[in-house]
Amino acid sequence: MFKYLISNPTTKTINYSFRYISSTVSKGPKGFKTGTTACGLKKNGNSDICVIYSESACNVAAVFTENKVKAAPVLLSKSLLDTYRNTGFQSLIINSGGANACTGDQGMTNAKTMSNLTSSTLKVKQPSFVMSTGIIGQQLDMNKVEKGIKEAITKLNPNDWLSAAKAIMTTDKVPKLSQKIIKLSDGKEANIVGICKGAGMIHPNMATMLCTVCTDAAVGEDVLNQILKHSVHYSFNSINVDGDMSTNDTVVLVSNGQADNKLINSNSSEDFNKLQEAIRSVMTELCQMIVRDAEGASKFVSINVVGADTEVNAKTIADTISRSSLVKTALYGADANWGRVLAAVGYSGVNIDPLKVSMWFSIGDGKDIGIGKKNDQKVCMQFLENGQPLEKDEKRAAAILEHGDVSIIVDLGMGKQHATMWTCDLTEEYVRANSHYRT
Amino acid sequence: MFKYLISNPTTKTINYSFRYISSTVSKGPKGFKTGTTACGLKKNGNSDICVIYSESACNVAAVFTENKVKAAPVLLSKSLLDTYRNTGFQSLIINSGGANACTGDQGMTNAKTMSNLTSSTLKVKQPSFVMSTGIIGQQLDMNKVEKGIKEAITKLNPNDWLSAAKAIMTTDKVPKLSQKIIKLSDGKEANIVGICKGAGMIHPNMATMLCTVCTDAAVGEDVLNQILKHSVHYSFNSINVDGDMSTNDTVVLVSNGQADNKLINSNSSEDFNKLQEAIRSVMTELCQMIVRDAEGASKFVSINVVGADTEVNAKTIADTISRSSLVKTALYGADANWGRVLAAVGYSGVNIDPLKVSMWFSIGDGKDIGIGKKNDQKVCMQFLENGQPLEKDEKRAAAILEHGDVSIIVDLGMGKQHATMWTCDLTEEYVRANSHYRT
Repeated sequence: MFKYLISNPTTKTINYSFRYISSTVSKGPKGFKTGTTACGLKKNGNSDICVIYSESACNVAAVFTENKVKAAPVLLSKSLLDTYRNTGFQSLIINSGGANACTGDQGMTNAKTMSNLTSSTLKVKQPSFVMSTGIIGQQLDMNKVEKGIKEAITKLNPNDWLSAAKAIMTTDKVPKLSQKIIKLSDGKEANIVGICKGAGMIHPNMATMLCTVCTDAAVGEDVLNQILKHSVHYSFNSINVDGDMSTNDTVVLVSNGQADNKLINSNSSEDFNKLQEAIRSVMTELCQMIVRDAEGASKFVSINVVGADTEVNAKTIADTISRSSLVKTALYGADANWGRVLAAVGYSGVNIDPLKVSMWFSIGDGKDIGIGKKNDQKVCMQFLENGQPLEKDEKRAAAILEHGDVSIIVDLGMGKQHATMWTCDLTEEYVRANSHYRT
Repeated sequence: MFKYLISNPTTKTINYSFRYISSTVSKGPKGFKTGTTACGLKKNGNSDICVIYSESACNVAAVFTENKVKAAPVLLSKSLLDTYRNTGFQSLIINSGGANACTGDQGMTNAKTMSNLTSSTLKVKQPSFVMSTGIIGQQLDMNKVEKGIKEAITKLNPNDWLSAAKAIMTTDKVPKLSQKIIKLSDGKEANIVGICKGAGMIHPNMATMLCTVCTDAAVGEDVLNQILKHSVHYSFNSINVDGDMSTNDTVVLVSNGQADNKLINSNSSEDFNKLQEAIRSVMTELCQMIVRDAEGASKFVSINVVGADTEVNAKTIADTISRSSLVKTALYGADANWGRVLAAVGYSGVNIDPLKVSMWFSIGDGKDIGIGKKNDQKVCMQFLENGQPLEKDEKRAAAILEHGDVSIIVDLGMGKQHATMWTCDLTEEYVRANSHYRT
């Protein structure tokens, strides 16, 4: 990965050194190919169709938006997983430039056409898994989409995952791609590649976080499902940009077994642990890229809640802090406003003792300070000790919070459980991006 | 009331014609007096001490912040109400310029000093009810406060409620004052005056919505409590500025019986209904003034959810919409972005049927359209009918949403219950006000 610097005409100069773009992938997971094209759904002429194909049948696990308003491709893909019991899939079709949400019966017909056209053109047995992202409430131009699917399939390539990441972008400024390669106990190599898109539920009438992770490891359906749930809990369910949830959010994990490893079919083996850690790590990198790319964000913020009685309580508090507009504007202003953080802790609904709460602000992800409670004066500063405010050096506090990567650490003083959420600050640029788009 | 026009150096010109300031009160409720002074807690030299005194003993009902982190005056006032069983009070002391929150034992000692000094100087038996607002985490300068309390008491006046409203302001741009006078069944007149402060939990390290409503009606403690809970539910619990809840929020309702009416001691009389309606109306006006005065707000937005199966579900959905940053930025941009509203309806957690949802945007509070479903083309525009998007005239939609008072109406098509929330838009000015304060 390399750093990505851009300038932005905002009232306050934003330093985007905290934003990364992906390196490329030189060797994709065995047996997978991707093909992309620009069929014309995107007005800017960028690629908007992505087909992912596997030479052999795959196991598939997926989680979908909990929004009651679900897009047609979400409803279709869910029902395909049910019908085929998460196995036997060989293809995914993803389009950007139209979410196919709130599109009624015609929308469902179009999603089915995408699915069936992809599988029939590829000459694979099972209908394709479908994902869409873009504007809500408009029908897809199916002439374009059908032409696009056929064209994308002529370009299938085993190593061009960066083009796949680009074809699913909407308001994303950078493509999002991550890879891990691990050695399994039988000496075989498992290759995991993930792509995703999303920058908050951000664009006017625009939706969606989509993520696809493909691995050539051989993994049983149940185990694959466990790995997915675990990884999503600690990645995509641990980020918050603006608190809004889209109609299309989907994370899908696909395995085709071409690594030829001994089937991972129980959650107690060393290989299970290794693979889960690698997949979680791919998803963590991807979800953090979303936060770094969030519209108008000027900071990447890690919120570490430690000393909780339960992990659920720690996460509830971290989540509440990550949603507070007042905390997020203060961070934008490099204002070490512990009062707003403490207020958010107080209204999180978790039973806490205000007289046991301590708080730090730090540079970076705060992990060292948060869990181990080191107190290195160069990188962190304590503001509250057992509910009592400490004297603070405003200048040094501002110097810490001027960094692109900062952290809030809250110690509840009630136990040993902890949780982390990743979020960004709230800036004038966020408001501009989300209000002035049509004008 | 008269309209209040101010200009503001923001990127987008904000029209503040939707913001009101209070008219004065020519005749306060019998037996009450207010005294104010500037003791020096506010750096700008504005008044910051307000004493409210009643010639006779009062019944008092109050609701306090649900934040687990409660300020010393909140803890003290709660315990005074418990000790004296909501009756026998003759005085309230309110300071602005310091919230006395996160101030430890010294903070509690200071709150008690304020309470006891007020009651002893006034020569009344019971300790005074105490409220504070301002910066969190700093001790009050008690030399100033004590001098201020004594001075304010020398200035007690039965009709100067506007000064009282001014003395409790923090980041408020306008004082907030409302009055109703009603005739009771025995021919006696009951006078109700309310003051409040708050502009969201807005200022850096600043907290609090405070509201005091005084009436000379004779009302039993239990009935007073019922009226308070009912009125707060439909007023202060029906507004949302930025979703943050302070450590000091307090609403207090005080009655001294000097109107000499027949004691209102049951909730089934006509007088009960009249009084409750008047008090609810005072609180509704006050809470709407808070939304209109919210930092950076350029619009007053009524969110009407109708056609729900229960009122609780209607309110949950209205509340979810009112918290969506994406909805609030779209309103700022006069963008009729029904997709964002529908997404918020979908993730509210309430079980809805997307194919039964209809939606309108309108000028004003939307009550006519929302409840009666009139469809006057001049003031409103429908965007969604039973989950299907309608053709929309972008120009006319923008013309509707350019108004200062606008409304979103969502019909769930599931029943006859409804609820309303009032909120404001999210603007660049909000971000500036909350991030750049210290710089």
